[in-house]
Amino acid sequence: MNFTGAHILSIKQFERADIKRIFDVADAMEPYALRKKVTRVLEGAILGNMFFEPSTRTRVSFGAAFNLLGGNVRETTGFESSSITKGESLYDTARVLSGYSDVICMRHPAGGSVAEFAEGSRVPVINGGDGPNEHPTQALLDLYTIRKEMRSKGRGLDGLRIAMIGDLKHGRTVHSLCKLVSLFSDIQLTLISPKELAMPEYIVEELRMAGNKVTITDDLTHSISDIDIAYSTRIQEERFGNKEEADMYRGRYRLNQRIYTEHCQPNTVIMHPLPRDSREEANELDNDLNANPNLAIFRQADNGVLVRMALFALVLNVADQVDKYSREVNWHSSLRG
Amino acid sequence: MNFTGAHILSIKQFERADIKRIFDVADAMEPYALRKKVTRVLEGAILGNMFFEPSTRTRVSFGAAFNLLGGNVRETTGFESSSITKGESLYDTARVLSGYSDVICMRHPAGGSVAEFAEGSRVPVINGGDGPNEHPTQALLDLYTIRKEMRSKGRGLDGLRIAMIGDLKHGRTVHSLCKLVSLFSDIQLTLISPKELAMPEYIVEELRMAGNKVTITDDLTHSISDIDIAYSTRIQEERFGNKEEADMYRGRYRLNQRIYTEHCQPNTVIMHPLPRDSREEANELDNDLNANPNLAIFRQADNGVLVRMALFALVLNVADQVDKYSREVNWHSSLRG
Amino acid sequence: MNFTGAHILSIKQFERADIKRIFDVADAMEPYALRKKVTRVLEGAILGNMFFEPSTRTRVSFGAAFNLLGGNVRETTGFESSSITKGESLYDTARVLSGYSDVICMRHPAGGSVAEFAEGSRVPVINGGDGPNEHPTQALLDLYTIRKEMRSKGRGLDGLRIAMIGDLKHGRTVHSLCKLVSLFSDIQLTLISPKELAMPEYIVEELRMAGNKVTITDDLTHSISDIDIAYSTRIQEERFGNKEEADMYRGRYRLNQRIYTEHCQPNTVIMHPLPRDSREEANELDNDLNANPNLAIFRQADNGVLVRMALFALVLNVADQVDKYSREVNWHSSLRG
Repeated sequence: MNFTGAHILSIKQFERADIKRIFDVADAMEPYALRKKVTRVLEGAILGNMFFEPSTRTRVSFGAAFNLLGGNVRETTGFESSSITKGESLYDTARVLSGYSDVICMRHPAGGSVAEFAEGSRVPVINGGDGPNEHPTQALLDLYTIRKEMRSKGRGLDGLRIAMIGDLKHGRTVHSLCKLVSLFSDIQLTLISPKELAMPEYIVEELRMAGNKVTITDDLTHSISDIDIAYSTRIQEERFGNKEEADMYRGRYRLNQRIYTEHCQPNTVIMHPLPRDSREEANELDNDLNANPNLAIFRQADNGVLVRMALFALVLNVADQVDKYSREVNWHSSLRG
Repeated sequence: MNFTGAHILSIKQFERADIKRIFDVADAMEPYALRKKVTRVLEGAILGNMFFEPSTRTRVSFGAAFNLLGGNVRETTGFESSSITKGESLYDTARVLSGYSDVICMRHPAGGSVAEFAEGSRVPVINGGDGPNEHPTQALLDLYTIRKEMRSKGRGLDGLRIAMIGDLKHGRTVHSLCKLVSLFSDIQLTLISPKELAMPEYIVEELRMAGNKVTITDDLTHSISDIDIAYSTRIQEERFGNKEEADMYRGRYRLNQRIYTEHCQPNTVIMHPLPRDSREEANELDNDLNANPNLAIFRQADNGVLVRMALFALVLNVADQVDKYSREVNWHSSLRG
Repeated sequence: MNFTGAHILSIKQFERADIKRIFDVADAMEPYALRKKVTRVLEGAILGNMFFEPSTRTRVSFGAAFNLLGGNVRETTGFESSSITKGESLYDTARVLSGYSDVICMRHPAGGSVAEFAEGSRVPVINGGDGPNEHPTQALLDLYTIRKEMRSKGRGLDGLRIAMIGDLKHGRTVHSLCKLVSLFSDIQLTLISPKELAMPEYIVEELRMAGNKVTITDDLTHSISDIDIAYSTRIQEERFGNKEEADMYRGRYRLNQRIYTEHCQPNTVIMHPLPRDSREEANELDNDLNANPNLAIFRQADNGVLVRMALFALVLNVADQVDKYSREVNWHSSLRG
């Protein structure tokens, strides 16, 4: 695809070459995210960070990514204004807000709303999550993390063996990730969930049509011995009849250091879309994994900044000028990794 | 007036020469708003964007204008802090906040509050709307838009023929605009509204005293054949006894493409303060006008940024240095007009 | 202490030499706060201004301080996100947010929460107030103000005579200030309050152990004749059985110009943590003092920016490079003092 000026609305837009392009640009952003260098390439540019539904981490991640390219951020959180409730169309809102920005990131609770907004916008719009529909940058940062983790082991994305664990029925994250991995070859997916929370049939079908090997099971410990990635999701209590039933499922899909040591190959990477529930009764990804170097959940969050920087650089067509406007800095603190 | 260090509280401050000065500076801002150039003239400066009442578009417009001059924005939305509710005077609030900023934009629900705040401030204060009282930058951007639209037709502001349509009784916007146009000569105003929503008598009086020709009518279609500008406002349902009554009025003052084609001269410019109600039952300025090149409502919003940039540049006395600190950029996207 | 990369969580961290270091750096920040110069020393750096409890003035002060050093600010106000309410640990929140920032300022309603957060953070964390526990930058700006005011009279902090007036039982501010002044020698403290609102015994004990002279009284007018600083705090009506009782106390501890003239030495400095209650019935620090040049309450707020700039410069280890990246500007307005 031609990224310049494009809206980023759905992972369906991307072909394999597009993914590679985004990830290669993301790699090039690392010196800036690690504060070895700063760039002014987007000096004077404005991101309209329009969060019509609150989400601190996604909002701050997009804003930080734009700042790291030298740009400014104007933002909104929640339906603060009554314009939309006064009957203004998304088209009108987009026409107006796009006059204040060079690129817009939008989150909105209604599925399809970001695409509708994009039709009125005169600048590129990036989908920051439109309710039950899509959250494409989350899917991209997940796959980018997988690529990085595999690379550090001398592997690529082809031939990936990934287990998805937990509530696979409702998780927007794993649905999108399934579609993205289908762009690669010889993927082995192990879908581990209670039957009631299984991956939707049409997604399994798509995965198999694309030539992937899919195994469906409700058994955790016997299914994670031969995988590269364990991607865990939340068991959402509110989906069950009662707490006891939920707890029963939870017990079976809870990953902790003991299970990891006994059942996983060394270096199996653990992922999770975050936030993870750390309360005693949930503890879906046990805190005792925090010392495990293969716990990649915080690297996922860090990678989100790189992927978002890459998307901004691509849609504003400055990916190859980031270095030109850069200089080195020395204010990174000793705490930073 | 001397703009340097001045508060911008009311359109009553301005004489004709001041308006010309603001608009000429606004014209000079266009390369920056269109992203042909960026400037650092206000590098290191801070705008305190203090919105004690939510208004996404006005808040973002002010913030973007300041960013486009190279400055930073610190802001607040709503009465988040309890300081004011704890009995702090506006004087104290202003004394403190003005220590954090180089210029403050303030919106507040109480009429007169911004002027009271300005008395305590050590930096220039711009009124971003103080409840039922004034919203001077809206009036300025309206008149600036009229100047630009007229200019593109080889005309000036003197001799302007403008129709104001809808609820002229409650519209702060049209009241302010009436006062501003009175600074010019030979204005012909056609005030089209139901009798119950007529322009207040004292404003009509002022208009006539200033030498303008004022026509008052409740008939839309026969009154818009000979005008340059059709300025439409919202029929506010909540002002009426019941919805049926409101709908009756609405039907008579709704502008759409058919009425425009049948009754207006070609190139009659259509304006509206926004947001416009696009719901089926309201549709006060029909969506079928969106393709009409004379629909200037989104140009109004764009012009708001230019006018606000001009005000910042003037009160901080850098209007003639904007170019000096500028450079060209190449990150404007292909979507942008 | 070694400031580079350090968390700033409590005033207990500081020894006398640390205080001197912070204040000397704060002094050096004045040309930037007065806008004689701007610096880019923190260009590209990001402050995560995480206010999980609203506080406009503290939030804006931290943000402005970071902007004045050339950095960007990403922020949050209130528990907008549901992550924390969904059971995410402060450790996880900190791990994630510290990937988006170079330094974090955090305010949180729960005592001890900021220290817990700091354990997960990979970047320095500054405590912006953790409920009933500490608000170290307020204590620092108070002491810094005292140093500056004393200096302008040719005095130092040793030998300081300070009266604390009002509700000394609940005031986090005066508790912290007591601990800080104990780092200096020969301090004379006069603690003026109703008996019911007296300074906690353990703090009085600490003050005396440190060699300070402490006088405890409930009489205002006879206790302020021989002091350098009158530090007034709020009589909090909600602490009393009924309004009448509170008003009775209030009457006795209300400082105004008449009392000041009759009972204080000339040049006695008046301080208050702000906001002050300016309503007729409270008026705890009378508005008629506004013209008194020794009323330092707004200088306190201004000094807060300097102290916060100093802390940022120290933890990011750029205190000695601020000038190197500076240039002069000419956009400070004529209103500014």
